[in-house]
Amino acid sequence: MSSHLFERHAETLRQAVAAIHERGYWSAFPEVPSGKIYGESAKADGARAFESRLESRFELDQPGCEGWLGSETSPYGIPLGISYPSMDLNVLLPAAQQATGSWSRAGVNERTGICLEILSRLNRRSFEMANAVMHTTGQGFAMAFQAGGPHAQDRGLEAIAYAWRLMSHVPDRVSWEKQISKTHVVRLEKTYRIVPRGLSLVIGCSTFPTWNAYPGLFANLVTGNAVVVKPSPTAVLPLAITVETAREVFRECGFDPNVVTLVVDEPKAPVTKQLATRPELSIIDFTGGSDFGTWLEQNARHVQLFTEKSGVNSVILDSVEDLRAMADNLAFSISLYSGQMCTKVQNIFVPCEGIAAGSARIGFEQVAHSLVEAVDRLLEDPSRAADVLGCIQSEKTLARITEARANGGALLRASESVSIEKYPRARVRSPLMLRVRAEDEPLFSREMFGPIIYVIETHGSAHSLALAKRLARERGAITWAVYATRKEVLAEAESAALSAGVPLSCNLTGPVWVNQAAAFSDYHVTGANPAGNATFCDEAFVAPRFRIIQTRRPSRTA
Amino acid sequence: MSSHLFERHAETLRQAVAAIHERGYWSAFPEVPSGKIYGESAKADGARAFESRLESRFELDQPGCEGWLGSETSPYGIPLGISYPSMDLNVLLPAAQQATGSWSRAGVNERTGICLEILSRLNRRSFEMANAVMHTTGQGFAMAFQAGGPHAQDRGLEAIAYAWRLMSHVPDRVSWEKQISKTHVVRLEKTYRIVPRGLSLVIGCSTFPTWNAYPGLFANLVTGNAVVVKPSPTAVLPLAITVETAREVFRECGFDPNVVTLVVDEPKAPVTKQLATRPELSIIDFTGGSDFGTWLEQNARHVQLFTEKSGVNSVILDSVEDLRAMADNLAFSISLYSGQMCTKVQNIFVPCEGIAAGSARIGFEQVAHSLVEAVDRLLEDPSRAADVLGCIQSEKTLARITEARANGGALLRASESVSIEKYPRARVRSPLMLRVRAEDEPLFSREMFGPIIYVIETHGSAHSLALAKRLARERGAITWAVYATRKEVLAEAESAALSAGVPLSCNLTGPVWVNQAAAFSDYHVTGANPAGNATFCDEAFVAPRFRIIQTRRPSRTA
Repeated sequence: MSSHLFERHAETLRQAVAAIHERGYWSAFPEVPSGKIYGESAKADGARAFESRLESRFELDQPGCEGWLGSETSPYGIPLGISYPSMDLNVLLPAAQQATGSWSRAGVNERTGICLEILSRLNRRSFEMANAVMHTTGQGFAMAFQAGGPHAQDRGLEAIAYAWRLMSHVPDRVSWEKQISKTHVVRLEKTYRIVPRGLSLVIGCSTFPTWNAYPGLFANLVTGNAVVVKPSPTAVLPLAITVETAREVFRECGFDPNVVTLVVDEPKAPVTKQLATRPELSIIDFTGGSDFGTWLEQNARHVQLFTEKSGVNSVILDSVEDLRAMADNLAFSISLYSGQMCTKVQNIFVPCEGIAAGSARIGFEQVAHSLVEAVDRLLEDPSRAADVLGCIQSEKTLARITEARANGGALLRASESVSIEKYPRARVRSPLMLRVRAEDEPLFSREMFGPIIYVIETHGSAHSLALAKRLARERGAITWAVYATRKEVLAEAESAALSAGVPLSCNLTGPVWVNQAAAFSDYHVTGANPAGNATFCDEAFVAPRFRIIQTRRPSRTA
Repeated sequence: MSSHLFERHAETLRQAVAAIHERGYWSAFPEVPSGKIYGESAKADGARAFESRLESRFELDQPGCEGWLGSETSPYGIPLGISYPSMDLNVLLPAAQQATGSWSRAGVNERTGICLEILSRLNRRSFEMANAVMHTTGQGFAMAFQAGGPHAQDRGLEAIAYAWRLMSHVPDRVSWEKQISKTHVVRLEKTYRIVPRGLSLVIGCSTFPTWNAYPGLFANLVTGNAVVVKPSPTAVLPLAITVETAREVFRECGFDPNVVTLVVDEPKAPVTKQLATRPELSIIDFTGGSDFGTWLEQNARHVQLFTEKSGVNSVILDSVEDLRAMADNLAFSISLYSGQMCTKVQNIFVPCEGIAAGSARIGFEQVAHSLVEAVDRLLEDPSRAADVLGCIQSEKTLARITEARANGGALLRASESVSIEKYPRARVRSPLMLRVRAEDEPLFSREMFGPIIYVIETHGSAHSLALAKRLARERGAITWAVYATRKEVLAEAESAALSAGVPLSCNLTGPVWVNQAAAFSDYHVTGANPAGNATFCDEAFVAPRFRIIQTRRPSRTA
């Protein structure tokens, strides 16, 4: 009844499979929030759909509902008041396991078609999703639309393409013929079946609930595993909408909707540790802070664990062609979503002697000043500032800004409140920028999540690279930028990045930023340093999610 | 200087890559120990090369040699007297790490060419290897030649083909072009580099030292990882020859030979635990007993661990077309190498009411008797018996036969000594066969490695399947056989095998056996039950061994 879905989406899959190999720019889901693409009423419809969720119960019809809970609040200061089912794990998990049966017996292409249909329906809900992401994560609307909608959908599609390509390498049935003597041929008929690893748990994060969850979610689904989705208690709605959409498609296609289920908790009574150690689980995908990721590594040893944690990202400034172009580019990376990204660049290493800019020599002070000026310039217009900065997602991040200021370092730029007319109670803060010396390593050697930037005086670019490399190896790093006009410095940076396992962006200016990672082209997190053990997306991310079981029997036609 | 090696072996690689997808019969290395294939003097040359090793030092020129050790003895009763370098790990491991540098910087194709050259040279040494495997494992010569030589080489090639296919999917360099407005295109040049996960350890086993080690060894090498090889102290020579061959090729190609090194110990002073917990390691491949495998899972948590452990394999007898054809086939599987295989079928489940054979009904007693008769028939001729049985590799296995006899069960067939004229002191024993009831589960529910077979009375085939399934899930299983003429029983067996994660062989008769697994076609160990977490070979076995690090920079030609 659902085999037509594979046909419907076959061309998208074909292009996605080509894209993960070619790795040039490609996207299946338009990133522009335009009525011409999504329908003239899409924006208003999405806003209405979001508003209809407020102050009400999010019904999912899952087995084992014991009551209702939920404590999300919008960083924009509006009440949400959405409640979600509180689940009895002793009912829900067996139901999810039960659902695995028929789902895993569906063929690879049928599962693929259904997963692509779910993504396609999520795409149609992108404006609703944008509102949900904006009011849980604090992202500005444009970013919430892109990162929460089409970019997340592209990441999900990418994982499906990787998994489908591997699974489709395995033939269903072959004839094995071996000549064992001049007159005797042995013929066996062999069949191969893809079986799922088992029940999986996807743990979402508070800042990019869909973008970070979709790769694991769709990689698990397409390989036949049932998935329990556990959102961050502060960003439930985007994943609840996702689960609702998936369950709807499963029902329509005649599958048990419990292939995908949602478990919600509140910060005052977290359930993730309890859930993650349940013996029913075989796979966990985690995105979030290193502390909890490390706890999982130590305590959820019965599962195949995929982690995308955090790290300390670095910029190495050596020399530039155009000081202002560099500063403007970094200012945007510094300011975007108030640095609440695992790809935020926290540490900007600058030689104490300054840097070369074209034929001029620019002293350290002036480099630091240029960066501050560029941030000020970017955020001058309050409306633009609000769009770029978004809101501070968590009270903890607000407190961290204060803590960083108090810890020390010379103030380059204070973090300031920015007001938004439409949302007077929104928590908006501009970046805090501090000047420190290499010797002040305790200040900058750990992740300071949020709008906190260190401009660090070093003895030269070799020193900068050595520091960045050590931090990456010890604390992890997800991205590095280098600005250098000299080939030998670029080569040294590339060599250091290779040995630290960090992707490197060189001399970015204009509208492309170090904290962006594009599906189908950029591998996000390398797995080669403590920032995580998994990549969005490569074969290592999908291959361990399924197994191959074979049967062989003598051929009747021998 | 070694780029010609990829060209030299390109056609073999092309065929291997086709074979892992097509999965019909294919082999790169001839399994027939024939002078016409390997050269008329190959057999004598191999024997001489082996004999020249005896009573002497096996020189490897590794850094950190502190002395000499070795305690191998031939199960055929001849002295070996070979000593190997005793290594200072504090010198050797840094040297191995050091060697990773230039090896990982070699391109994918250069590494692949070198690995294929190593395999090709190992193939030319297959007769020498056959002697080495025979006199350490106790396998008969023909089996030692095939399993220790060409079949092991095929498994290594298979791993190379899987890894090469994945790595070659990643482009070296792409141009990424995104239209960001009607007039503006952003162009980035991106490069992707394959980097190894890190230093790897391959732990060999005592019965199939090369066959079980080559997949991990070559998967690690081709993905750029240096490898420390740690053989079982009772089966060092086959892997020492392997390491010697590899080091010779590395030297010739201008690479540091410490890309592959050997660490040897003696049973009285084992070093594997110490080695496996060294922080320098990033990958461990282990083949061997479940006890040590489980210890590694619990203690070597800093590494990516691939295990091929052991399990309890089952035969389900329901109905046959030809009783004798079934019994003859099983008799060979029971007897081959005295059951010292992880694919040995230990438990033969037979309904108490007996089985259908054609139109007749055969009682339990008669089924059991037919199996015993078939084993007796196979082993009637002492010379053939010796070839099939080989020797008992370990004193522990000898003791286990006595223990099994003492534990209980009705004796169907006693284990007897078999004498070999050429080797009067060889430890040769025929299979012990015991009749037990399903209620005697403590007797047959754990692996009894060696020539110990239980014929188990059940209440019917559903009961047999339920028992086999539970054992597989609790203790692991690597292979199952079912004999059934009824379609519904075959379907139930297939369904049980799928849910227990065990490959199933149906109604095998003639020269193809349940305990065989052919490279390029049969997945060995599924990873889907406690018998191991890895498969020879699939993408999950190779993908986690390397990472991809990218660099992006604005295109100059924008």
